[in-house]
Amino acid sequence: MAGQHGHGPDFSPAFRAAFADLLHWRRDVRRFRKDSLPDGLLDEVLALADLAPSVGNSQPWRIVRVDSPARRDAVTRLFEQENNRALAAYEGEKAELYARLKLAGLREAPVQLAVFCDPDPEQGHGLGRATMPQTLAFSAVGMVQCLWLAARMHGVGLGWVSIIDPQAVKTTLDVPSGWELIGYLCLGFPEEEHLVPELEREGWQARTPLEGRIFIR
Amino acid sequence: MAGQHGHGPDFSPAFRAAFADLLHWRRDVRRFRKDSLPDGLLDEVLALADLAPSVGNSQPWRIVRVDSPARRDAVTRLFEQENNRALAAYEGEKAELYARLKLAGLREAPVQLAVFCDPDPEQGHGLGRATMPQTLAFSAVGMVQCLWLAARMHGVGLGWVSIIDPQAVKTTLDVPSGWELIGYLCLGFPEEEHLVPELEREGWQARTPLEGRIFIR
Repeated sequence: MAGQHGHGPDFSPAFRAAFADLLHWRRDVRRFRKDSLPDGLLDEVLALADLAPSVGNSQPWRIVRVDSPARRDAVTRLFEQENNRALAAYEGEKAELYARLKLAGLREAPVQLAVFCDPDPEQGHGLGRATMPQTLAFSAVGMVQCLWLAARMHGVGLGWVSIIDPQAVKTTLDVPSGWELIGYLCLGFPEEEHLVPELEREGWQARTPLEGRIFIR
Repeated sequence: MAGQHGHGPDFSPAFRAAFADLLHWRRDVRRFRKDSLPDGLLDEVLALADLAPSVGNSQPWRIVRVDSPARRDAVTRLFEQENNRALAAYEGEKAELYARLKLAGLREAPVQLAVFCDPDPEQGHGLGRATMPQTLAFSAVGMVQCLWLAARMHGVGLGWVSIIDPQAVKTTLDVPSGWELIGYLCLGFPEEEHLVPELEREGWQARTPLEGRIFIR
């Protein structure tokens, strides 16, 4: 690492190309091998993710590692319940396709993390969030995004489960009532790796050109 | 780039070390040089950021490049108004320190982007967000996080302005009323580079050990 200030590191063309590969190959993974991660690897990627920016340097993320089989079972049931509810909102071919999609790897993933946001952390002394308090939750999301990339860099897949009742997860995991669920994450080695998102491969939704998302004022 | 499926790229120890450097040196930048970015660089980092994950592959981010000097002036005034309001909430030494902090580079940054979320995009067909609709905004936040890293990799600083009234920004920029402001971003070459966040160097708030943010259940 270069000095503490002045000119930071330059990133080589080779690094830039590999970073683009990392972004291209970062998938939402739902098909995991059951074998556990090597000792220390989870700590290593969490330490990298913890370098994420946060409003007022508040670091409001709270990471619950869910190890209890009973709690994992309960979370899996919460997902299945909401997923059935979501399926019921589709009709015809879309319903048939939705029913075939695998949207979570809760029964296989060896590591499961529930990420919460503390809505009123002392750290940061409130700076930057008076007008937009949602920036606390946004900070926790940024941490997850860094975790996603750090994990993939080490060959570890991450799947973000969002089809789940946040209040029920809080009760199941016995966390402070004020915390806000950001996401329930499955991590482990993926069964297979793909450049193209599963939702695109299955014909649900492909990416679209960036041009349609850019506006000038 | 490796094949489209099967075994994705392996990331070398050298890449992993440089990626850790990237995370370590990614700052929230508020002190920008005024010179513009080289042709094509903004498009390049936006294309990388657009690879971010999104719920249901919905890509709900809407990126407004703010070029109009009048609109930039108006946004700057919105920031100053909210920043004065935020300052009034502190007392004593904390107020004196807050008043000395530079919290935005709106008068210097050559590129300014307002990032919004479309709260009901057709793309994605609603998948994954029925239970937690905030996952749309979270997807837009993840895009910004990827942009932050891609920009820094190219030596470009990014500062996220959150001390600003979202409704007033929407009016100023004449965007659809349903859009949700995620953040107003300043980009440009930084005047100086630092390993330690400005809020820590100025004595406002240092990072704290990760251990206090990890819980087991």
